[in-house]
Amino acid sequence: MRLGRVLYQNEAYYALFETEKIKLLKEFPAKGLCFSGLEITPSEARIIAPCVPSKIIALGLNYRDHARELGLPLPEEPLIFMKPPSAVIGPEEHILLPPESERVDYEAELAVVIGRKARRVKPEEAYGYILGYTCFNDVTARDLQQKDGQWTRAKSFDTFAPFGPWIETELDPSDLRVRSYLNGELKQDSSTRELVFSVPEIVSFVSNIMTLLPGDLIATGTPPGIGPLTAGDVIEVEIEGIGRLKNYVSPENLL
Amino acid sequence: MRLGRVLYQNEAYYALFETEKIKLLKEFPAKGLCFSGLEITPSEARIIAPCVPSKIIALGLNYRDHARELGLPLPEEPLIFMKPPSAVIGPEEHILLPPESERVDYEAELAVVIGRKARRVKPEEAYGYILGYTCFNDVTARDLQQKDGQWTRAKSFDTFAPFGPWIETELDPSDLRVRSYLNGELKQDSSTRELVFSVPEIVSFVSNIMTLLPGDLIATGTPPGIGPLTAGDVIEVEIEGIGRLKNYVSPENLL
Repeated sequence: MRLGRVLYQNEAYYALFETEKIKLLKEFPAKGLCFSGLEITPSEARIIAPCVPSKIIALGLNYRDHARELGLPLPEEPLIFMKPPSAVIGPEEHILLPPESERVDYEAELAVVIGRKARRVKPEEAYGYILGYTCFNDVTARDLQQKDGQWTRAKSFDTFAPFGPWIETELDPSDLRVRSYLNGELKQDSSTRELVFSVPEIVSFVSNIMTLLPGDLIATGTPPGIGPLTAGDVIEVEIEGIGRLKNYVSPENLL
Repeated sequence: MRLGRVLYQNEAYYALFETEKIKLLKEFPAKGLCFSGLEITPSEARIIAPCVPSKIIALGLNYRDHARELGLPLPEEPLIFMKPPSAVIGPEEHILLPPESERVDYEAELAVVIGRKARRVKPEEAYGYILGYTCFNDVTARDLQQKDGQWTRAKSFDTFAPFGPWIETELDPSDLRVRSYLNGELKQDSSTRELVFSVPEIVSFVSNIMTLLPGDLIATGTPPGIGPLTAGDVIEVEIEGIGRLKNYVSPENLL
Protein backbone atom coordinates (compact mmCIF):
# COMPACT_ATOMS: atom_id res chain seq x y z
CA MET A 1 0.00 0.00 0.00
CA ARG A 2 0.97 3.59 -0.57
CA LEU A 3 -0.06 5.76 2.37
CA GLY A 4 0.53 9.47 2.72
CA ARG A 5 -1.11 12.84 2.98
CA VAL A 6 -2.76 15.24 0.57
CA LEU A 7 -4.03 18.77 0.68
CA TYR A 8 -7.62 18.73 -0.61
CA GLN A 9 -9.82 21.84 -0.53
CA ASN A 10 -7.29 23.46 1.82
CA GLU A 11 -7.40 20.65 4.37
CA ALA A 12 -4.74 18.03 5.07
CA TYR A 13 -5.89 14.40 4.93
CA TYR A 14 -4.15 11.09 5.37
CA ALA A 15 -4.70 9.10 2.20
CA LEU A 16 -4.41 5.75 0.47
CA PHE A 17 -2.97 6.17 -3.05
CA GLU A 18 -4.36 3.79 -5.65
CA THR A 19 -3.57 3.74 -9.37
CA GLU A 20 -6.21 6.21 -10.55
CA LYS A 21 -7.69 7.47 -7.32
CA ILE A 22 -6.92 8.64 -3.81
CA LYS A 23 -9.03 7.49 -0.87
CA LEU A 24 -9.04 9.96 2.01
CA LEU A 25 -8.63 8.62 5.55
CA LYS A 26 -9.86 9.88 8.89
CA GLU A 27 -6.55 9.59 10.74
CA PHE A 28 -2.96 8.42 10.71
CA PRO A 29 -3.21 4.83 9.40
CA ALA A 30 -1.19 3.18 12.17
CA LYS A 31 -3.93 0.83 13.41
CA GLY A 32 -5.53 -0.05 10.09
CA LEU A 33 -7.28 2.18 7.60
CA CYS A 34 -10.26 4.28 8.62
CA PHE A 35 -11.82 5.63 5.42
CA SER A 36 -13.54 9.01 5.37
CA GLY A 37 -15.69 7.96 2.41
CA LEU A 38 -14.13 10.68 0.23
CA GLU A 39 -12.54 9.45 -2.98
CA ILE A 40 -10.75 11.90 -5.26
CA THR A 41 -8.52 11.89 -8.34
CA PRO A 42 -4.83 12.84 -8.25
CA SER A 43 -5.52 16.11 -10.09
CA GLU A 44 -7.84 17.32 -7.31
CA ALA A 45 -5.19 17.18 -4.57
CA ARG A 46 -1.62 18.15 -3.81
CA ILE A 47 0.63 15.57 -2.18
CA ILE A 48 2.25 16.82 1.04
CA ALA A 49 4.78 15.24 3.43
CA PRO A 50 3.28 11.80 4.20
CA CYS A 51 3.22 12.06 7.99
CA VAL A 52 3.92 14.41 10.90
CA PRO A 53 6.90 13.09 12.87
CA SER A 54 7.30 14.02 16.54
CA LYS A 55 11.00 13.46 15.92
CA ILE A 56 13.38 12.67 13.07
CA ILE A 57 16.43 10.56 13.85
CA ALA A 58 19.14 10.06 11.26
CA LEU A 59 22.32 8.00 10.97
CA GLY A 60 25.79 9.09 9.97
CA LEU A 61 28.17 6.91 7.91
CA ASN A 62 25.98 3.84 7.48
CA TYR A 63 26.97 2.68 3.97
CA ARG A 64 29.92 0.35 3.48
CA ASP A 65 30.63 1.74 0.00
CA HIS A 66 30.64 5.29 1.41
CA ALA A 67 33.01 4.32 4.25
CA ARG A 68 35.34 2.64 1.68
CA GLU A 69 35.26 5.77 -0.47
CA LEU A 70 36.21 7.94 2.51
CA GLY A 71 38.82 5.43 3.76
CA LEU A 72 37.09 5.31 7.13
CA PRO A 73 36.68 2.21 9.33
CA LEU A 74 33.14 0.88 9.72
CA PRO A 75 31.44 2.19 12.88
CA GLU A 76 30.92 -0.28 15.73
CA GLU A 77 27.58 1.22 16.67
CA PRO A 78 25.10 3.43 14.78
CA LEU A 79 25.95 7.14 15.10
CA ILE A 80 22.73 9.12 15.45
CA PHE A 81 21.71 12.76 15.19
CA MET A 82 18.35 14.54 14.97
CA LYS A 83 16.59 16.96 12.65
CA PRO A 84 13.70 19.09 13.97
CA PRO A 85 10.09 18.63 12.76
CA SER A 86 10.20 22.30 11.68
CA ALA A 87 12.57 21.28 8.84
CA VAL A 88 9.98 19.05 7.12
CA ILE A 89 8.79 19.77 3.58
CA GLY A 90 6.97 17.53 1.13
CA PRO A 91 7.44 16.61 -2.53
CA GLU A 92 7.72 19.45 -5.08
CA GLU A 93 8.43 21.96 -2.32
CA HIS A 94 11.48 24.20 -2.30
CA ILE A 95 14.67 23.57 -0.34
CA LEU A 96 15.73 27.07 0.72
CA LEU A 97 19.46 27.85 0.82
CA PRO A 98 20.14 29.90 3.98
CA PRO A 99 22.58 32.83 3.77
CA GLU A 100 24.58 31.32 6.66
CA SER A 101 25.97 28.51 4.47
CA GLU A 102 28.03 28.47 1.29
CA ARG A 103 27.63 24.75 0.70
CA VAL A 104 24.36 22.89 1.11
CA ASP A 105 24.44 19.21 0.05
CA TYR A 106 21.79 16.63 -0.89
CA GLU A 107 21.92 13.18 0.72
CA ALA A 108 19.56 10.49 -0.62
CA GLU A 109 18.33 8.12 2.09
CA LEU A 110 15.80 5.41 2.83
CA ALA A 111 13.67 6.47 5.80
CA VAL A 112 11.73 4.14 8.09
CA VAL A 113 8.31 5.33 9.31
CA ILE A 114 7.30 4.03 12.74
CA GLY A 115 3.77 2.63 13.06
CA ARG A 116 3.54 1.67 16.74
CA LYS A 117 4.99 3.03 19.97
CA ALA A 118 8.36 1.33 20.31
CA ARG A 119 10.58 1.11 23.39
CA ARG A 120 13.49 -1.34 23.73
CA VAL A 121 12.39 -3.42 20.79
CA LYS A 122 14.65 -6.32 19.78
CA PRO A 123 15.91 -6.48 16.16
CA GLU A 124 13.84 -9.63 15.52
CA GLU A 125 10.67 -7.79 16.61
CA ALA A 126 11.44 -4.51 14.82
CA TYR A 127 9.36 -5.11 11.66
CA GLY A 128 6.24 -5.23 13.83
CA TYR A 129 6.78 -1.55 14.73
CA ILE A 130 7.40 -0.28 11.20
CA LEU A 131 4.57 1.19 9.14
CA GLY A 132 6.61 1.49 5.95
CA TYR A 133 9.35 3.29 4.04
CA THR A 134 9.77 6.59 2.25
CA CYS A 135 12.40 8.63 0.37
CA PHE A 136 14.31 11.16 2.47
CA ASN A 137 16.77 13.91 1.59
CA ASP A 138 19.06 14.67 4.55
CA VAL A 139 19.90 18.19 3.37
CA THR A 140 23.10 19.38 5.12
CA ALA A 141 25.02 22.66 5.31
CA ARG A 142 28.41 20.98 4.89
CA ASP A 143 30.49 24.02 5.86
CA LEU A 144 28.57 24.51 9.13
CA GLN A 145 28.77 20.78 9.87
CA GLN A 146 32.57 20.99 9.68
CA LYS A 147 32.77 24.29 11.56
CA ASP A 148 30.54 23.26 14.48
CA GLY A 149 31.69 19.68 15.05
CA GLN A 150 28.20 18.98 16.33
CA TRP A 151 25.91 18.40 13.33
CA THR A 152 22.67 19.85 14.66
CA ARG A 153 22.82 23.35 13.16
CA ALA A 154 23.98 22.06 9.76
CA LYS A 155 21.08 19.59 9.56
CA SER A 156 18.28 21.70 11.05
CA PHE A 157 17.46 24.67 8.84
CA ASP A 158 13.84 25.00 7.77
CA THR A 159 13.20 22.94 4.56
CA PHE A 160 16.21 20.63 5.26
CA ALA A 161 14.06 17.51 5.78
CA PRO A 162 12.16 16.77 2.54
CA PHE A 163 10.48 13.38 2.47
CA GLY A 164 7.85 11.49 0.53
CA PRO A 165 6.09 11.21 -1.82
CA TRP A 166 4.35 8.47 0.22
CA ILE A 167 4.97 5.60 2.60
CA GLU A 168 5.23 2.19 0.95
CA THR A 169 4.12 -0.48 3.39
CA GLU A 170 4.84 -3.68 1.41
CA LEU A 171 8.59 -3.63 1.03
CA ASP A 172 11.62 -5.66 2.06
CA PRO A 173 14.24 -2.98 2.90
CA SER A 174 17.27 -5.28 2.72
CA ASP A 175 18.22 -4.75 -0.95
CA LEU A 176 16.65 -1.63 -2.46
CA ARG A 177 18.39 0.61 -4.95
CA VAL A 178 18.87 4.16 -3.60
CA ARG A 179 19.63 6.88 -6.14
CA SER A 180 19.71 10.64 -6.45
CA TYR A 181 19.47 12.77 -9.56
CA LEU A 182 20.62 16.39 -9.75
CA ASN A 183 18.95 18.16 -12.67
CA GLY A 184 18.27 14.72 -14.15
CA GLU A 185 21.87 13.50 -13.84
CA LEU A 186 22.48 10.37 -11.75
CA LYS A 187 24.62 11.30 -8.71
CA GLN A 188 24.15 8.57 -6.10
CA ASP A 189 23.52 4.94 -6.97
CA SER A 190 23.81 2.26 -4.31
CA SER A 191 21.66 -0.31 -2.55
CA THR A 192 20.50 -0.81 1.00
CA ARG A 193 22.44 -4.10 0.96
CA GLU A 194 25.47 -1.81 1.57
CA LEU A 195 23.98 -0.64 4.90
CA VAL A 196 26.39 -1.20 7.81
CA PHE A 197 23.45 -1.49 10.23
CA SER A 198 20.27 -3.06 8.85
CA VAL A 199 16.81 -1.55 9.26
CA PRO A 200 15.82 -3.89 12.16
CA GLU A 201 19.14 -3.24 13.92
CA ILE A 202 18.66 0.53 13.57
CA VAL A 203 15.08 0.53 14.88
CA SER A 204 16.16 -1.61 17.83
CA PHE A 205 19.17 0.64 18.59
CA VAL A 206 17.17 3.87 18.50
CA SER A 207 14.30 2.37 20.53
CA ASN A 208 16.82 1.44 23.25
CA ILE A 209 17.51 5.17 23.64
CA MET A 210 14.15 6.82 23.13
CA THR A 211 10.50 5.87 22.87
CA LEU A 212 9.50 5.98 19.19
CA LEU A 213 5.98 7.14 18.34
CA PRO A 214 3.74 6.52 15.30
CA GLY A 215 4.89 8.78 12.47
CA ASP A 216 8.46 9.15 13.76
CA LEU A 217 11.11 8.89 11.06
CA ILE A 218 14.51 7.23 11.05
CA ALA A 219 16.71 8.10 8.06
CA THR A 220 19.18 5.30 7.52
CA GLY A 221 22.24 7.11 6.12
CA THR A 222 23.44 8.07 2.66
CA PRO A 223 25.57 6.26 0.04
CA PRO A 224 28.54 7.84 -1.85
CA GLY A 225 28.05 10.63 -4.38
CA ILE A 226 26.70 13.49 -2.27
CA GLY A 227 27.27 16.97 -3.61
CA PRO A 228 26.22 20.62 -3.46
CA LEU A 229 22.92 22.24 -4.40
CA THR A 230 22.60 25.58 -6.20
CA ALA A 231 19.58 27.83 -6.59
CA GLY A 232 17.57 26.67 -9.59
CA ASP A 233 18.50 22.99 -9.18
CA VAL A 234 16.04 20.11 -9.18
CA ILE A 235 17.04 17.30 -6.80
CA GLU A 236 15.37 13.89 -6.80
CA VAL A 237 15.73 10.93 -4.45
CA GLU A 238 14.59 7.63 -5.94
CA ILE A 239 14.17 4.40 -4.04
CA GLU A 240 13.27 1.11 -5.67
CA GLY A 241 9.73 0.06 -4.80
CA ILE A 242 8.79 3.49 -3.42
CA GLY A 243 9.18 6.13 -6.12
CA ARG A 244 10.79 9.54 -6.52
CA LEU A 245 10.91 12.51 -4.17
CA LYS A 246 11.45 15.69 -6.20
CA ASN A 247 12.35 19.08 -4.74
CA TYR A 248 13.37 22.44 -6.13
CA VAL A 249 16.19 24.56 -4.77
CA SER A 250 15.85 28.31 -4.15
CA PRO A 251 17.64 30.98 -2.16
CA GLU A 252 15.99 31.82 1.13
CA ASN A 253 14.25 35.10 0.52
CA LEU A 254 15.07 37.33 3.48
CA LEU A 255 12.53 40.13 3.37
CA MET B 1 2.86 34.81 36.72
CA ARG B 2 3.56 31.15 37.22
CA LEU B 3 2.15 29.07 34.37
CA GLY B 4 2.37 25.33 33.98
CA ARG B 5 0.43 22.11 33.86
CA VAL B 6 -1.23 19.85 36.39
CA LEU B 7 -2.81 16.44 36.38
CA TYR B 8 -6.27 16.79 37.94
CA GLN B 9 -8.72 13.88 38.03
CA ASN B 10 -6.54 12.06 35.49
CA GLU B 11 -6.58 14.89 32.96
CA ALA B 12 -3.76 17.26 32.05
CA TYR B 13 -4.59 20.98 32.27
CA TYR B 14 -2.59 24.12 31.68
CA ALA B 15 -2.74 26.14 34.88
CA LEU B 16 -2.05 29.45 36.58
CA PHE B 17 -0.39 28.90 39.97
CA GLU B 18 -1.38 31.38 42.67
CA THR B 19 -0.31 31.37 46.31
CA GLU B 20 -3.04 29.12 47.70
CA LYS B 21 -4.86 28.01 44.61
CA ILE B 22 -4.46 26.77 41.05
CA LYS B 23 -6.69 28.11 38.27
CA LEU B 24 -7.11 25.65 35.41
CA LEU B 25 -6.85 26.96 31.84
CA LYS B 26 -8.45 25.84 28.61
CA GLU B 27 -5.27 25.86 26.52
CA PHE B 28 -1.58 26.71 26.27
CA PRO B 29 -1.44 30.30 27.58
CA ALA B 30 0.50 31.79 24.66
CA LYS B 31 -2.11 34.35 23.63
CA GLY B 32 -3.39 35.36 27.04
CA LEU B 33 -5.13 33.27 29.67
CA CYS B 34 -8.34 31.43 28.89
CA PHE B 35 -9.77 30.23 32.21
CA SER B 36 -11.78 27.01 32.38
CA GLY B 37 -13.58 28.21 35.50
CA LEU B 38 -12.12 25.37 37.57
CA GLU B 39 -10.17 26.45 40.64
CA ILE B 40 -8.45 23.85 42.79
CA THR B 41 -6.01 23.65 45.71
CA PRO B 42 -2.42 22.39 45.34
CA SER B 43 -3.25 19.18 47.24
CA GLU B 44 -5.86 18.19 44.64
CA ALA B 45 -3.43 18.10 41.71
CA ARG B 46 -0.01 16.84 40.69
CA ILE B 47 2.31 19.23 38.88
CA ILE B 48 3.58 17.84 35.56
CA ALA B 49 6.06 19.22 32.98
CA PRO B 50 4.81 22.79 32.31
CA CYS B 51 4.44 22.53 28.52
CA VAL B 52 4.72 20.14 25.59
CA PRO B 53 7.64 21.21 23.40
CA SER B 54 7.68 20.27 19.71
CA LYS B 55 11.45 20.51 20.05
CA ILE B 56 14.11 21.09 22.71
CA ILE B 57 17.25 22.93 21.70
CA ALA B 58 20.18 23.19 24.09
CA LEU B 59 23.54 24.96 24.13
CA GLY B 60 26.98 23.58 24.87
CA LEU B 61 29.66 25.54 26.74
CA ASN B 62 27.79 28.78 27.32
CA TYR B 63 29.13 29.84 30.77
CA ARG B 64 32.31 31.91 31.02
CA ASP B 65 33.16 30.44 34.44
CA HIS B 66 32.75 26.92 33.04
CA ALA B 67 34.99 27.68 30.04
CA ARG B 68 37.63 29.16 32.41
CA GLU B 69 37.44 26.04 34.56
CA LEU B 70 37.98 23.80 31.54
CA GLY B 71 40.70 26.09 30.10
CA LEU B 72 38.73 26.37 26.85
CA PRO B 73 38.41 29.49 24.68
CA LEU B 74 34.98 31.12 24.55
CA PRO B 75 32.95 29.99 21.54
CA GLU B 76 32.44 32.52 18.72
CA GLU B 77 28.90 31.29 18.03
CA PRO B 78 26.42 29.29 20.10
CA LEU B 79 26.91 25.52 19.75
CA ILE B 80 23.52 23.82 19.64
CA PHE B 81 22.21 20.29 19.98
CA MET B 82 18.72 18.80 20.46
CA LYS B 83 16.97 16.52 22.91
CA PRO B 84 13.80 14.64 21.80
CA PRO B 85 10.35 15.41 23.28
CA SER B 86 10.23 11.74 24.37
CA ALA B 87 12.88 12.56 27.02
CA VAL B 88 10.63 14.99 28.92
CA ILE B 89 9.66 14.37 32.55
CA GLY B 90 8.22 16.74 35.12
CA PRO B 91 9.03 17.61 38.74
CA GLU B 92 9.26 14.75 41.27
CA GLU B 93 9.54 12.21 38.46
CA HIS B 94 12.38 9.70 38.23
CA ILE B 95 15.45 10.06 36.04
CA LEU B 96 16.13 6.48 34.91
CA LEU B 97 19.75 5.39 34.53
CA PRO B 98 20.03 3.31 31.33
CA PRO B 99 22.22 0.17 31.38
CA GLU B 100 24.12 1.52 28.34
CA SER B 101 25.89 4.18 30.42
CA GLU B 102 28.17 4.06 33.44
CA ARG B 103 28.17 7.78 34.04
CA VAL B 104 25.04 9.93 33.87
CA ASP B 105 25.50 13.58 34.90
CA TYR B 106 23.17 16.36 36.03
CA GLU B 107 23.46 19.80 34.40
CA ALA B 108 21.45 22.69 35.91
CA GLU B 109 20.22 25.16 33.27
CA LEU B 110 17.89 28.08 32.73
CA ALA B 111 15.46 27.21 29.91
CA VAL B 112 13.56 29.70 27.77
CA VAL B 113 9.97 28.82 26.83
CA ILE B 114 8.83 30.20 23.47
CA GLY B 115 5.41 31.90 23.41
CA ARG B 116 4.98 32.90 19.76
CA LYS B 117 6.06 31.43 16.44
CA ALA B 118 9.54 32.83 15.84
CA ARG B 119 11.54 32.86 12.60
CA ARG B 120 14.61 35.05 12.03
CA VAL B 121 13.91 37.21 15.04
CA LYS B 122 16.47 39.92 15.88
CA PRO B 123 18.01 39.95 19.39
CA GLU B 124 16.29 43.26 20.18
CA GLU B 125 12.89 41.70 19.31
CA ALA B 126 13.51 38.37 21.06
CA TYR B 127 11.74 39.12 24.37
CA GLY B 128 8.48 39.53 22.45
CA TYR B 129 8.64 35.83 21.51
CA ILE B 130 9.41 34.48 24.99
CA LEU B 131 6.61 33.25 27.25
CA GLY B 132 8.86 32.77 30.29
CA TYR B 133 11.56 30.74 31.98
CA THR B 134 11.85 27.41 33.75
CA CYS B 135 14.42 25.15 35.44
CA PHE B 136 15.95 22.47 33.21
CA ASN B 137 18.22 19.52 33.92
CA ASP B 138 20.21 18.58 30.80
CA VAL B 139 20.84 14.99 31.91
CA THR B 140 23.78 13.55 29.96
CA ALA B 141 25.39 10.11 29.63
CA ARG B 142 28.95 11.48 29.79
CA ASP B 143 30.67 8.28 28.67
CA LEU B 144 28.49 7.98 25.55
CA GLN B 145 28.95 11.68 24.78
CA GLN B 146 32.72 11.13 24.70
CA LYS B 147 32.49 7.85 22.82
CA ASP B 148 30.15 9.06 20.07
CA GLY B 149 31.55 12.53 19.40
CA GLN B 150 28.03 13.54 18.38
CA TRP B 151 26.05 14.30 21.54
CA THR B 152 22.60 13.12 20.45
CA ARG B 153 22.56 9.63 21.95
CA ALA B 154 24.08 10.80 25.26
CA LYS B 155 21.43 13.51 25.67
CA SER B 156 18.35 11.65 24.38
CA PHE B 157 17.45 8.76 26.66
CA ASP B 158 13.89 8.73 28.00
CA THR B 159 13.68 10.84 31.24
CA PHE B 160 16.82 12.88 30.32
CA ALA B 161 14.91 16.18 29.95
CA PRO B 162 13.33 17.07 33.32
CA PHE B 163 11.94 20.59 33.49
CA GLY B 164 9.66 22.70 35.64
CA PRO B 165 8.09 23.10 38.10
CA TRP B 166 6.44 25.99 36.19
CA ILE B 167 7.13 28.82 33.75
CA GLU B 168 7.81 32.18 35.38
CA THR B 169 6.76 34.95 33.01
CA GLU B 170 7.89 38.07 34.93
CA LEU B 171 11.64 37.70 35.02
CA ASP B 172 14.76 39.46 33.77
CA PRO B 173 17.05 36.57 32.74
CA SER B 174 20.28 38.60 32.70
CA ASP B 175 21.44 37.97 36.28
CA LEU B 176 19.73 34.99 37.90
CA ARG B 177 21.45 32.62 40.27
CA VAL B 178 21.53 29.03 38.90
CA ARG B 179 22.24 26.27 41.39
CA SER B 180 22.03 22.51 41.70
CA TYR B 181 21.84 20.39 44.85
CA LEU B 182 22.68 16.69 44.95
CA ASN B 183 21.08 15.05 47.99
CA GLY B 184 20.81 18.52 49.51
CA GLU B 185 24.47 19.45 48.93
CA LEU B 186 25.19 22.52 46.77
CA LYS B 187 27.01 21.41 43.59
CA GLN B 188 26.59 24.17 41.02
CA ASP B 189 26.33 27.86 41.91
CA SER B 190 26.65 30.50 39.24
CA SER B 191 24.61 33.26 37.64
CA THR B 192 23.23 33.87 34.17
CA ARG B 193 25.45 36.99 34.06
CA GLU B 194 28.21 34.45 33.23
CA LEU B 195 26.39 33.42 30.03
CA VAL B 196 28.61 33.78 26.95
CA PHE B 197 25.52 34.34 24.75
CA SER B 198 22.61 36.15 26.36
CA VAL B 199 19.01 34.94 26.23
CA PRO B 200 18.01 37.35 23.40
CA GLU B 201 21.12 36.43 21.39
CA ILE B 202 20.35 32.73 21.79
CA VAL B 203 16.69 33.04 20.75
CA SER B 204 17.73 35.07 17.71
CA PHE B 205 20.46 32.58 16.73
CA VAL B 206 18.21 29.53 16.99
CA SER B 207 15.34 31.29 15.17
CA ASN B 208 17.73 31.99 12.27
CA ILE B 209 18.06 28.23 11.84
CA MET B 210 14.62 26.88 12.59
CA THR B 211 11.09 28.13 13.14
CA LEU B 212 10.35 28.10 16.88
CA LEU B 213 6.82 27.23 17.99
CA PRO B 214 4.88 28.03 21.19
CA GLY B 215 6.04 25.67 23.93
CA ASP B 216 9.45 25.00 22.38
CA LEU B 217 12.33 25.03 24.88
CA ILE B 218 15.84 26.39 24.63
CA ALA B 219 18.17 25.32 27.44
CA THR B 220 20.91 27.92 27.79
CA GLY B 221 23.90 25.85 28.97
CA THR B 222 25.27 24.77 32.33
CA PRO B 223 27.74 26.38 34.79
CA PRO B 224 30.68 24.54 36.45
CA GLY B 225 30.17 21.81 39.03
CA ILE B 226 28.42 19.08 37.03
CA GLY B 227 28.79 15.55 38.34
CA PRO B 228 27.41 12.00 38.28
CA LEU B 229 24.07 10.68 39.47
CA THR B 230 23.60 7.37 41.31
CA ALA B 231 20.43 5.38 41.93
CA GLY B 232 18.76 6.71 45.08
CA ASP B 233 19.95 10.30 44.57
CA VAL B 234 17.77 13.38 44.73
CA ILE B 235 18.82 16.09 42.29
CA GLU B 236 17.46 19.64 42.38
CA VAL B 237 17.90 22.56 40.00
CA GLU B 238 17.15 25.94 41.57
CA ILE B 239 16.88 29.21 39.69
CA GLU B 240 16.38 32.55 41.38
CA GLY B 241 12.88 33.89 40.77
CA ILE B 242 11.56 30.56 39.47
CA GLY B 243 11.92 27.88 42.14
CA ARG B 244 13.25 24.35 42.43
CA LEU B 245 12.95 21.39 40.09
CA LYS B 246 13.36 18.18 42.10
CA ASN B 247 13.86 14.73 40.58
CA TYR B 248 14.69 11.30 41.91
CA VAL B 249 17.20 8.93 40.34
CA SER B 250 16.51 5.24 39.76
CA PRO B 251 17.92 2.44 37.66
CA GLU B 252 15.96 1.74 34.51
CA ASN B 253 13.99 -1.40 35.27
CA LEU B 254 14.38 -3.66 32.27
CA LEU B 255 11.61 -6.20 32.63
